[in-house]
Amino acid sequence: MGALRLPSLPAILVRPTRPSTSRSPAIFRRSFPFLPPAAARFSARSTAEVSTDASTKTKTQDRVITPRSLDFNAWYLDIIANAELADYGPVRGTMVIRPYGYAIWEAIQEYLNVKFKETGHSNMYFPQFIPYSFIEKEASHVEGFSPELALVTIGGGKELEEKLVVRPTSETIVNHMFTQWIHSHRDLPLMINQWANVTRWEMRTKPFVRTLEFLWQEGHTAHATPEEAEKEALQMIDVYTKFAYEQAAIPVIAGRKSKVETFAGADRTYTIEAMMGDRKALQAGTSHNLGQNFSRAFGTQFTDENGLRQHVWQTSWAISTRFVGGIIMTHGDDAGLMVPPRVAPIQVVIVPIWKKEEEKSDVLDAAVNVYEVLKSAGVKVKLDDSEQRTPGWKFNFWEMKGVPIRIEIGPRDVSNRSLVISRRDIPGKQGKVFGVSMEPAILVPYVKDKLDEIQAALLSMATSFRDSNIVDVSSYDELKAAISAGKWAKGPWSASDKDELKVKEETGATIRCYPFEQPEGTKTCLMTGNPADEVAIFAKSY
Amino acid sequence: MGALRLPSLPAILVRPTRPSTSRSPAIFRRSFPFLPPAAARFSARSTAEVSTDASTKTKTQDRVITPRSLDFNAWYLDIIANAELADYGPVRGTMVIRPYGYAIWEAIQEYLNVKFKETGHSNMYFPQFIPYSFIEKEASHVEGFSPELALVTIGGGKELEEKLVVRPTSETIVNHMFTQWIHSHRDLPLMINQWANVTRWEMRTKPFVRTLEFLWQEGHTAHATPEEAEKEALQMIDVYTKFAYEQAAIPVIAGRKSKVETFAGADRTYTIEAMMGDRKALQAGTSHNLGQNFSRAFGTQFTDENGLRQHVWQTSWAISTRFVGGIIMTHGDDAGLMVPPRVAPIQVVIVPIWKKEEEKSDVLDAAVNVYEVLKSAGVKVKLDDSEQRTPGWKFNFWEMKGVPIRIEIGPRDVSNRSLVISRRDIPGKQGKVFGVSMEPAILVPYVKDKLDEIQAALLSMATSFRDSNIVDVSSYDELKAAISAGKWAKGPWSASDKDELKVKEETGATIRCYPFEQPEGTKTCLMTGNPADEVAIFAKSY
Repeated sequence: MGALRLPSLPAILVRPTRPSTSRSPAIFRRSFPFLPPAAARFSARSTAEVSTDASTKTKTQDRVITPRSLDFNAWYLDIIANAELADYGPVRGTMVIRPYGYAIWEAIQEYLNVKFKETGHSNMYFPQFIPYSFIEKEASHVEGFSPELALVTIGGGKELEEKLVVRPTSETIVNHMFTQWIHSHRDLPLMINQWANVTRWEMRTKPFVRTLEFLWQEGHTAHATPEEAEKEALQMIDVYTKFAYEQAAIPVIAGRKSKVETFAGADRTYTIEAMMGDRKALQAGTSHNLGQNFSRAFGTQFTDENGLRQHVWQTSWAISTRFVGGIIMTHGDDAGLMVPPRVAPIQVVIVPIWKKEEEKSDVLDAAVNVYEVLKSAGVKVKLDDSEQRTPGWKFNFWEMKGVPIRIEIGPRDVSNRSLVISRRDIPGKQGKVFGVSMEPAILVPYVKDKLDEIQAALLSMATSFRDSNIVDVSSYDELKAAISAGKWAKGPWSASDKDELKVKEETGATIRCYPFEQPEGTKTCLMTGNPADEVAIFAKSY
Repeated sequence: MGALRLPSLPAILVRPTRPSTSRSPAIFRRSFPFLPPAAARFSARSTAEVSTDASTKTKTQDRVITPRSLDFNAWYLDIIANAELADYGPVRGTMVIRPYGYAIWEAIQEYLNVKFKETGHSNMYFPQFIPYSFIEKEASHVEGFSPELALVTIGGGKELEEKLVVRPTSETIVNHMFTQWIHSHRDLPLMINQWANVTRWEMRTKPFVRTLEFLWQEGHTAHATPEEAEKEALQMIDVYTKFAYEQAAIPVIAGRKSKVETFAGADRTYTIEAMMGDRKALQAGTSHNLGQNFSRAFGTQFTDENGLRQHVWQTSWAISTRFVGGIIMTHGDDAGLMVPPRVAPIQVVIVPIWKKEEEKSDVLDAAVNVYEVLKSAGVKVKLDDSEQRTPGWKFNFWEMKGVPIRIEIGPRDVSNRSLVISRRDIPGKQGKVFGVSMEPAILVPYVKDKLDEIQAALLSMATSFRDSNIVDVSSYDELKAAISAGKWAKGPWSASDKDELKVKEETGATIRCYPFEQPEGTKTCLMTGNPADEVAIFAKSY
């Protein structure tokens, strides 16, 4: 049974601060009766690290996935492995994105790519090798990124004269090119986007959330006025916000970063902050107003309508494969993942059920028929007609993979021309509807409505969870209490950067943002007692 | 007028073998009356390199684009620059793909991505950093790729223990992962694809055709039997062939590579070879039957139905941004590019024409209306309503950019509720139709039919060109004559690798492929006089 043992995940990709909770013991997993082939395929690197603290957990439940309620981080890593979302690359901190995980990224790409084009951006591609000297041109940029750089020093067997940076982000090379393309105000605005890989030499990595190499899109724009740049930066954080709510069912809080947390090289950074299932914050997307920082560093100028030379005003904005991690960590339960229908690689799985051999062909015919009907209606549907697994195994497996709807078809359903529909988000019999007609004219709208309902339900659940875990605070003591209870603290803030860093040091929480949505009325800084213009949200974060 | 001077392109990306023909003299370009803003924006790096051989060319024609008939390579580079397809990156041999060029790549991606999924492949993503030791595992692979590697030696400020290769191709890392995922025959076939960037430290580069970094897709599959692997390799070269013919209007010749030209690590390489406008061959896509070469090197095994451990049989296949270069170099004329409608970023451009101010609003209203009608019918349409340029300038500009159809709308057209349609592929009045109705029910099918006609016409033109430039040869002398006349030579071949290398040395031509379509009858090797099973095609190539 060695092949069936689910090895725990290598320490290398686990935040070293919580080593004891970061993996579930092997003994705990071995008893799972429905172990998917997925598990057997997983890298067997850490089999040596067998449980030490198994005694407290083995009795709880009979599952291969560590219960989410028991150990969130172990659950996350178990899900990544068992649902075949990703695997570890051979180089420390790198990740292989497997088809099921990549399909979620593709859903993100498809939506955003359309929105970017609708808002006037064109896709293009910049080289990933950047001369080292470029990175040094913008002072705060080099400070922010130089510890994280991967450098190419040998090319074609020869030592290079100038080291090349493998792009950690592209502002420098983009400005180098913009400087050549932009001459007059008629060349503005220049609005582009690229889908690309980026490299940051991170020391503490975690699949999707923080990896040495990741995939993202980065938008870069140049404008004639600061007002236009500001409008663009806000427009794009708005696109991200809508995406998060409407597609990923993640009720992010959009707002402005504090000066301390602003992007290296930006005047202002806007962000969407998402609350994960463990109540830690995930920065899920950012949009930067770069001002003239890069245009001054790279001499990106245009001749305005009065014939004067001016530096352009710029923005950049990005969402990455980290967002896939955000989707996983927002939704789900002890049984596994829950993928929101609009980003789900599989929206409906059909499980045919028969006992006697003579029932088989009728059941399979009906299942194929339903499959074809749903597929041609544009539903992402999978028919699991494999004969090596029992229906019970399949139920568990596809639940673990987070497929929003399961359709069961048995012999009695066939004779009734009906089927059974189960919702992933409502466990047990409450989520089941029997006797749904197989008639395409009834079934298709029924399934589509159900998908919409599930989409809305996931957002609603996540919103309730978020709201019940944000505490209004008016003093530093209240803030500390909220943070140590694992919650987010929201309170008026006008204190110094130094105070902000003190909060970080003492509580582990940072300002996630000053939310765009601000409460009415006068405010008093929770730290200093001085008047404050805004409330800030503090939280521990990934 | 310094800003309007079109600098010649830096020598760095030009094949150094033909320095004198690789750029057109600046003086020759300066006189172009319709110089697009594009030109003004282009990098001014090489302004020092002013013409030396201008005297022979200046009289010929009054254009910014070097005539294709005069100097193919200079035409190609002019087109790249003026049509804003690409620009040079700051690192030698790298390329920035600009929106118009990238949109052609997106059209390629959209088509192939669907075909890959239809044929059972899933997208995923592998890290680009590969431990150096991986590359050394497959003997012929390391020999083929090691001179071209870019190596990361520093990460996060520290010298790395093991150098990392920036992927030149992913067979090694794919096999490393496949070895962990594949256990039983039930895990096979495993069929995946990735869209990614790759790096090869090329010394002689040329935009799109050969760059230090390029974009591609690479498919990788593992099978239980050699027959399945062979079937897959053939299936994918067939997908590429159909794409070339039906979408890119490039009549490629599909066939098998000679042993000498086979991919480093493959048992057999299938290829599609395209004839460019200068009659050089471009290898436009390849599909490799890898046999068990990588599975043996990486220990990628499965347990077969009899419980025996076997090495998997594999394939890999790729198409890259080089194909964009192939499209540019297949179609086009002295006036510029011709983009086949099915891969065209813009299929129809509308140019409104008015003289008197009181005509303007009616003409513009009609133009906007036609734009909306075509757009909602799914046509990729652009309305050029800028007032800074004359209609004549616009005609030339969009011709140069290769837009298949131009629609002109003037005051008289508005009162007649009609418009004028010009085909890019048929110059002058012959390609013009007056009085086409603006009625959507008439206009939309008319435009779509015309696009189909143009698509077919481009393929037909390219096919005639190809066929008139392939010479059947039956002796080495005939081969040499054909090659030195700039043509392709096709003749029976069963000689040795050494003879093949001799041909290369003496004529510059290589075996492009043994075409799948073979003539009937007995054959005698053109070199040795021995019996031959197949004819081979010899040509000079990019």
